[in-house]
Amino acid sequence: MHHAGGDLTDAAPRAAARLVGELHARGPRVHCITNTVAQAYTANMLLAAGGVPSMTLSAEEIGGFVARADALLVNLGTFDAERRAATGVAIAAAHEHRRPWVLDPVFVDRSASRAAFARDLVRRGARVVRLNHAELTALADGATREDAMAYARATGVVVAVSGTADLITDGMRTIAIGNGHPLMARVTAMGCAGSALVAACLALEPDALMASAAALIALGVAGEIAAEKSAGPGSFAFHIIDALAALDAPTLMARAKVSA
Amino acid sequence: MHHAGGDLTDAAPRAAARLVGELHARGPRVHCITNTVAQAYTANMLLAAGGVPSMTLSAEEIGGFVARADALLVNLGTFDAERRAATGVAIAAAHEHRRPWVLDPVFVDRSASRAAFARDLVRRGARVVRLNHAELTALADGATREDAMAYARATGVVVAVSGTADLITDGMRTIAIGNGHPLMARVTAMGCAGSALVAACLALEPDALMASAAALIALGVAGEIAAEKSAGPGSFAFHIIDALAALDAPTLMARAKVSA
Amino acid sequence: MHHAGGDLTDAAPRAAARLVGELHARGPRVHCITNTVAQAYTANMLLAAGGVPSMTLSAEEIGGFVARADALLVNLGTFDAERRAATGVAIAAAHEHRRPWVLDPVFVDRSASRAAFARDLVRRGARVVRLNHAELTALADGATREDAMAYARATGVVVAVSGTADLITDGMRTIAIGNGHPLMARVTAMGCAGSALVAACLALEPDALMASAAALIALGVAGEIAAEKSAGPGSFAFHIIDALAALDAPTLMARAKVSA
Repeated sequence: MHHAGGDLTDAAPRAAARLVGELHARGPRVHCITNTVAQAYTANMLLAAGGVPSMTLSAEEIGGFVARADALLVNLGTFDAERRAATGVAIAAAHEHRRPWVLDPVFVDRSASRAAFARDLVRRGARVVRLNHAELTALADGATREDAMAYARATGVVVAVSGTADLITDGMRTIAIGNGHPLMARVTAMGCAGSALVAACLALEPDALMASAAALIALGVAGEIAAEKSAGPGSFAFHIIDALAALDAPTLMARAKVSA
Repeated sequence: MHHAGGDLTDAAPRAAARLVGELHARGPRVHCITNTVAQAYTANMLLAAGGVPSMTLSAEEIGGFVARADALLVNLGTFDAERRAATGVAIAAAHEHRRPWVLDPVFVDRSASRAAFARDLVRRGARVVRLNHAELTALADGATREDAMAYARATGVVVAVSGTADLITDGMRTIAIGNGHPLMARVTAMGCAGSALVAACLALEPDALMASAAALIALGVAGEIAAEKSAGPGSFAFHIIDALAALDAPTLMARAKVSA
Repeated sequence: MHHAGGDLTDAAPRAAARLVGELHARGPRVHCITNTVAQAYTANMLLAAGGVPSMTLSAEEIGGFVARADALLVNLGTFDAERRAATGVAIAAAHEHRRPWVLDPVFVDRSASRAAFARDLVRRGARVVRLNHAELTALADGATREDAMAYARATGVVVAVSGTADLITDGMRTIAIGNGHPLMARVTAMGCAGSALVAACLALEPDALMASAAALIALGVAGEIAAEKSAGPGSFAFHIIDALAALDAPTLMARAKVSA
């Protein structure tokens, strides 16, 4: 399972190259509890990558949807009573049916109650938590980017911190991914869609560090390709969908920027 | 009202050619109970075709919106308590004001309670039910595509089953529409938007079979035109809106692929 | 504070030119209570202009989000119990923390209860109300476009009425803005996004008439630039985002069409 640094920098691009093909071949179902701002864009990014999204939230139905899905995303943006209730049922179903799930604790730095809820979700067995630096600090009692490894070790969750380079750690291993483009921060729901791609990869790859790295390499490379064709954030938003749909193994192997 | 097979293959393209113009000229209002994933894309597709969408859901207001609309769409994606309540009020208003309405029973194959709700909606007077094969099987107790005609005859609803060819039947007449493109399945809410277009045509054309055929011919032809210009599902999603907005009668007459 | 007519026609383009730069430099946070149809497009338009959107609605959290924001938008589209409750808490927080807020009373012409709610919101201190002619008539007891100035004087709100020319008045001063393009009416949420841009400008410019004028000039000029590149409403929807992101002071000064 564990790789030395040098192995990781080889293994992550290879995982990305393999998983991008498998997503299209196997079409994993990803059930998404996500905010209404992000739902359509997340669905389109998943479809572009080969995944099959579903987004139902009602407490009555969501257990069945999760049971029939291959992975679950829990995104806390525009969080409300309905989503809170749905999350409880969905996580129970995920555990019962052994579906891996990803937590995206959007804006926990702006709401103490949301941060408390997110901490509880980490304890309940999220496989990956994907977030930015401010969210990590709010989630992990003042943790900096450098503390991510300790937090991952303490909680058992894989931590993926976005930034100029994405940092991914499971507490033992750490990978930095240098792909991406500033326009990605100018399109709403880009981070949410990235977390959904992590969930899709996690449906196919049990090593959560590798699944996370593969998804974020693919997203970052697609962003770089899209930026070359875009005249601004509006055109970038669709070019990255086209680029993600067209990604192939040679492109990923050639463009991945991974360091350990 | 009823046409022989040969007549239908002529009549359906002519209905599409006529209705595409009338939509722009008359701007029918379509009130949509639809899922949050599909709302914006559905609204933009309706606007492109000349319709005027509204999407309010609150039980207090929706009756008034339906009364002032020309047709109603009930889409069951991301179905929740609010939408269930809204649907009851909306259908009562539709019947009181004699507005036709279309049912899109999204994912009834994944939720038994949703399938039961959809069956009740068919009994309550939906004019058209638009769905895929798996949804038809869940709705109509194991029905296959070939059983659609019997189901339509038994329930009085026009059934439009999507697929490589769209099949539309009112229990007496059957039309198959061969237009469309595989990229249509790679954009979220494309089917939902198609059902909204059926509702828009139904506002202007009382023959529900012809209204459904016209909407699906228009959507399919727009999809073919868009695919010629697209580099993937991201660009396809907006090119089909442009193509739908620019559709004219000669294009539809030339490109419609209808068999009976 | 007050300008003569000639001053206003100079001052408004200059305000637009200045504020477009400041938005990118200062990145004001705009908290949006808006309908689910408009959320993603509104967020992308705000991001394109340099603003930082948030969209949380839960009554428990929204007070904290508004306290940390620089301006608030209250849009009444797809209004429901959750949004009603959120609005009360959000406005209380806006007053406590002295955040300016904008009201977009979508479709008050179609719902008497929504119109009554909107009238109460105007009394509770909205700085700007942005609406179309039918909505103004419903809000202000039969007021026509010509009555907007009297309504503004009576209520203390700045009124921005959309139309072939946008009319903006604070009851003392009136500006007409002739920028824009018919395709803007063919994209859902364009008006909602415009109101969000007014809120973003209001975060930086205390003169609500000037803030409104600046936002609507910027939006209209972006629309004109986008229309030159668009093949229909689908491509227009992203070209206007690109154009808004790229707007600069010389372009605004050259293209603004303002009369008093």
